[in-house]
Amino acid sequence: MKRRALIAGAGAGALALAACARKPASTGTVPSGKRFEWKMVTTWPPNFPGMGSGVNQLVKNIEAASAGRLRIKVYAANELVPAFEVFDAVSQGTVEIGHGAAYYWKNKTPASQFFTAIPFGMNVLEMNGWMYYGGGLDLYRELYARPQFNLVPFPAGNTGVQMGGWFNKPITSVDDLRGLKMRSPGIGGEVLKRAGGTPVTLPASEIFTALQTGSIDAAEWVGPYNDMALGLQDAAQYYYYPGWQEPGPLLECIVNQDAWASLPPDLQTIVELACSALNDQMMAEFFARNANSLALLEEDEDVEIRPFPDEVLRELRRYTGEVLADMVAAYPDVARVYESFSAYRGRAVRWSAISELAYLNTRNL
Amino acid sequence: MKRRALIAGAGAGALALAACARKPASTGTVPSGKRFEWKMVTTWPPNFPGMGSGVNQLVKNIEAASAGRLRIKVYAANELVPAFEVFDAVSQGTVEIGHGAAYYWKNKTPASQFFTAIPFGMNVLEMNGWMYYGGGLDLYRELYARPQFNLVPFPAGNTGVQMGGWFNKPITSVDDLRGLKMRSPGIGGEVLKRAGGTPVTLPASEIFTALQTGSIDAAEWVGPYNDMALGLQDAAQYYYYPGWQEPGPLLECIVNQDAWASLPPDLQTIVELACSALNDQMMAEFFARNANSLALLEEDEDVEIRPFPDEVLRELRRYTGEVLADMVAAYPDVARVYESFSAYRGRAVRWSAISELAYLNTRNL
Repeated sequence: MKRRALIAGAGAGALALAACARKPASTGTVPSGKRFEWKMVTTWPPNFPGMGSGVNQLVKNIEAASAGRLRIKVYAANELVPAFEVFDAVSQGTVEIGHGAAYYWKNKTPASQFFTAIPFGMNVLEMNGWMYYGGGLDLYRELYARPQFNLVPFPAGNTGVQMGGWFNKPITSVDDLRGLKMRSPGIGGEVLKRAGGTPVTLPASEIFTALQTGSIDAAEWVGPYNDMALGLQDAAQYYYYPGWQEPGPLLECIVNQDAWASLPPDLQTIVELACSALNDQMMAEFFARNANSLALLEEDEDVEIRPFPDEVLRELRRYTGEVLADMVAAYPDVARVYESFSAYRGRAVRWSAISELAYLNTRNL
Repeated sequence: MKRRALIAGAGAGALALAACARKPASTGTVPSGKRFEWKMVTTWPPNFPGMGSGVNQLVKNIEAASAGRLRIKVYAANELVPAFEVFDAVSQGTVEIGHGAAYYWKNKTPASQFFTAIPFGMNVLEMNGWMYYGGGLDLYRELYARPQFNLVPFPAGNTGVQMGGWFNKPITSVDDLRGLKMRSPGIGGEVLKRAGGTPVTLPASEIFTALQTGSIDAAEWVGPYNDMALGLQDAAQYYYYPGWQEPGPLLECIVNQDAWASLPPDLQTIVELACSALNDQMMAEFFARNANSLALLEEDEDVEIRPFPDEVLRELRRYTGEVLADMVAAYPDVARVYESFSAYRGRAVRWSAISELAYLNTRNL
């Protein structure tokens, strides 16, 4: 048999953080006493469960690790700038740092959506693998480093697989999606449109009322933990899974390039470590709290938790392929990112099949 | 319908790092210029792919984030102490810090095994949720804080679902496990024993030769990336999945309590953040590199990658239940940890079923 002592990449030995470094290793110097007061704008409501609370912890950690040399004041959406102006505010240096999700910036650069989530794309384990060890982060950094953007992005949180959404009638075939007005942003919304539905974009604060008053027919938000915080279980009867539209959405921390360059190397490393730690911990928070919230929800006799029929998922996957093909044809940047994404995804899907999926299936034996 | 605005725990707002803190928040002080030179002992061969390389990056990150104030020299297994004496060396203060896996210390305290992996237990997402947000880390800290141990543990890496192992004959029923001499440590080995096999514990460096010469019949190590680094594909024909015995093994960083107390608060936070970042990045490395290695392995015509038959997995799960029941009956510490573990696992399994599992299943539609 063929002997392969070292597998592709095994000898590289470079973790992602090293790959991201824009600095020489800082060793043996006394830490600079210079102080920084930064502002962070976010796309989230104040102290929002999971995202907002994660960001609060991020800045606390940075402050503690820097012994107060880097203090960051967090502004929720609309406190300083609206949610969808976070990218511009950091890019232009109005503030130094921001937290949100790359797919919110699809009108700036459609390729950004691949750095959050793609329908029928990658789950959190696959996504983190692509980011740190599959070339994803390099492409992400390259895109955001363009002079007109002037940003350094960091992976900084994930919700894991979302739910498919809340409906007031059962979904038994794709025909039931026709004419459906649904809160469903991003590429998932495009896919819904091809299925004959009408996607609507609404901020968190407006979803409950829109659904309860019938101004929309259905809504997807995140998962049990966040959806119940909005009270969506009181506005719709059917809760569908899985969240084919967002299988592992990665959240981002973005730093203005000039602000980044102004930090001494130790504070740069502290910011990088704090973002990676948030990527670790926020996923854990969403997992544990979704599990707790789901247990409560299943006691609620007025909610039916149902899987989408296979035929519906098959059709949605087919439409997703069409939407992605159109994007690849229309945008060279998308084509470039898609090439890396889909080559890696092919290998990742196979490994997931015989590791995570095969293991989870042993529970149903 | 019942309105539940805030779900259990939603208002707590405390991330795990805050929960672990043994210190007041450090703000507004100038960082201490005091320097620390620590030694780290590990259970891994030098620069071992994934674990060893991750540890190297951990200490680089700590050094950079502290501007050289906390330097840690890494010693591989046997360089300073043997792999299985890492716990004692850190506990007694011979060195300040160590990296390994809690289940190696089952002879010190059998409950430690729950903080690494239990057969048919939790995968990485479930495990991190239990650790940081389900009470696991509190139990882990409490156990290791006992005066005779004198340690502070930190989650610090994961391999994800392992493979089931290498065999030189097909496994078609549990009868094929009878009389089988297999490298299979920990509780997985106990389970194999109940199935009539003979578990053997061997360090990484001896597995290839033992399997090739026939002194053992089978071996499980980690997954494609690490197994191929040992050349196991040249010593056995059948590669079975899934790794029911280690569905999401968490690795640990352990710090001597007195050494920990000697650090100023900013360096404590840096160590915590660097461990959490390693927990994020090592899992990503294993995922991406296992996927790459598997793709290479599937080109190898002499290796057959096969699933364990359902009946075999059902029997192994039944034996696992027996082994755990015996441990719970024999050890009060195990009973205490098992209560938290199994209550959380029940909720986690349900959430995984409609999130990760349901999503991964869409790929086979």
